[in-house]
Amino acid sequence: MKIKKAVITAAGRRQRTLPLQTLIDRDGVEKSVLTILIEEVLAAGIDEIGVVVRPGDEQAYMQVAGAHARRLHFVQQVEPLGHGHAVACAGAFVGRDPFLHLVGDHLYVSSSAQRCAQALVMMAETQVCAISAVQPTRESLLPYYGAVGGRRVSGTQALYEVDTVIEKPTPTQAEQHLIVPGLRAGYYLCFFGMHVLTPGVMSILDEQIAAGRAGAQGGITLSAALVELARREKYLALELAGNRYDVGVKYGLLMAQMALALTGDDREEVMARLLELLAQRELSRQPA
Amino acid sequence: MKIKKAVITAAGRRQRTLPLQTLIDRDGVEKSVLTILIEEVLAAGIDEIGVVVRPGDEQAYMQVAGAHARRLHFVQQVEPLGHGHAVACAGAFVGRDPFLHLVGDHLYVSSSAQRCAQALVMMAETQVCAISAVQPTRESLLPYYGAVGGRRVSGTQALYEVDTVIEKPTPTQAEQHLIVPGLRAGYYLCFFGMHVLTPGVMSILDEQIAAGRAGAQGGITLSAALVELARREKYLALELAGNRYDVGVKYGLLMAQMALALTGDDREEVMARLLELLAQRELSRQPA
Repeated sequence: MKIKKAVITAAGRRQRTLPLQTLIDRDGVEKSVLTILIEEVLAAGIDEIGVVVRPGDEQAYMQVAGAHARRLHFVQQVEPLGHGHAVACAGAFVGRDPFLHLVGDHLYVSSSAQRCAQALVMMAETQVCAISAVQPTRESLLPYYGAVGGRRVSGTQALYEVDTVIEKPTPTQAEQHLIVPGLRAGYYLCFFGMHVLTPGVMSILDEQIAAGRAGAQGGITLSAALVELARREKYLALELAGNRYDVGVKYGLLMAQMALALTGDDREEVMARLLELLAQRELSRQPA
Repeated sequence: MKIKKAVITAAGRRQRTLPLQTLIDRDGVEKSVLTILIEEVLAAGIDEIGVVVRPGDEQAYMQVAGAHARRLHFVQQVEPLGHGHAVACAGAFVGRDPFLHLVGDHLYVSSSAQRCAQALVMMAETQVCAISAVQPTRESLLPYYGAVGGRRVSGTQALYEVDTVIEKPTPTQAEQHLIVPGLRAGYYLCFFGMHVLTPGVMSILDEQIAAGRAGAQGGITLSAALVELARREKYLALELAGNRYDVGVKYGLLMAQMALALTGDDREEVMARLLELLAQRELSRQPA
């Protein structure tokens, strides 16, 4: 199995302008969030990229993509009917090929030399199946993520066979269905916002859309399709050495920028300025 | 003397889009840099604001100013002939009144309950003269700022009578002309990017423009006019309890956002997330 295409979804209500934001990447160069995501995809050996947008956003995305603009294939999601629906909109673009999927409002910062998408794609190609990147996540953060239950693939450190998926589980649901042997107590495998998906996922999404689930609460979720996928196909989860930053939450851009800066070429300079700033803050809080 | 007007300059080549950037202010609310500056001005008791822009930028500024848009009087600087020239463009707006002047690419974070502009305006009204906010700044940072020489006004802690002004002085120039008795060795009083200016400054700027200095290196500087002002009028400098952040330099927005966050209502939350991020970074650098 060779992964040759990627789909970035960026049509969500609160998501549309986030890929247009500008940050300084690890190499010290100012880039849009979209460009950083495109470079993540390219580093995984993929250069055909579908971007799911709301109609009318194409021009702005082309502009911030710069030299990469010619690699982008725009796909329109006319109504915001959910994350799964957005992925399904890219059906004609991906055809019968497996593909890498990233969400347009996350940034991925690897803590190894290999970038996150590259590690995920290599594992998918080796295992010849759908695979979701996951991260052990504290119970208190479950309301923000989809989470998987399953068990470690024997002989591996970071690979899991997925039995079930629950979107934003309650602590009780998590305790009953998502405990993964070998994880630290109180931690669950939550989605990292990066998947390799198969044509099987697209078929399931099409079925769910045909069944009229788009009207349901939250619309067509990707998690519901992944629940069904785990029943039908081999479906794995890979724990990546890295962190994902949701730039759409409050202070999300700040933390993403700080993570990029502290991981990149300017690490020492930024750390020095940060410490200076903290020292100034502390001094100013002391009584005169 | 009562200060009723303010002038924000935002027409510089690298400066035009900076006031449009979005940050989260100390109150936890997402705002444009322009809005944060407008609120700085309002907190000083001033509600007539002239904004010097390049022709065509008005609409974008109006949009990000939101509810404050109606307070803005746009003044066009057609050619980028220097910072002093930009101030002079506001001549018709300010008339014969003294005014507060801020630069559109700086954010000011006070470390006392009183905001920076408020402290400066109150001192100007008490002293009835032009006054520049300054900050003791390490010699190594002189290439980035204008700096003043002078001596402390007796009986005060933070007020100086200005004798001379040099824009981006060399260390030698600084040592010969800008040493201020009582400052820590190796420190100079550099501009904070905030001034109260008098009609006298406008007359000097007009003279310098008429004398054809706009063609000179760096165009018409404000510093050159302030050198002459110190000869003609009482001209003071006030050391403010706070910091200014130039959002136009590399990582400038990051540091400004971090300073706002660590000074504001969300201080504890941001500090916790910052420490978590630093811990993750350190962990990821340890050998496995």
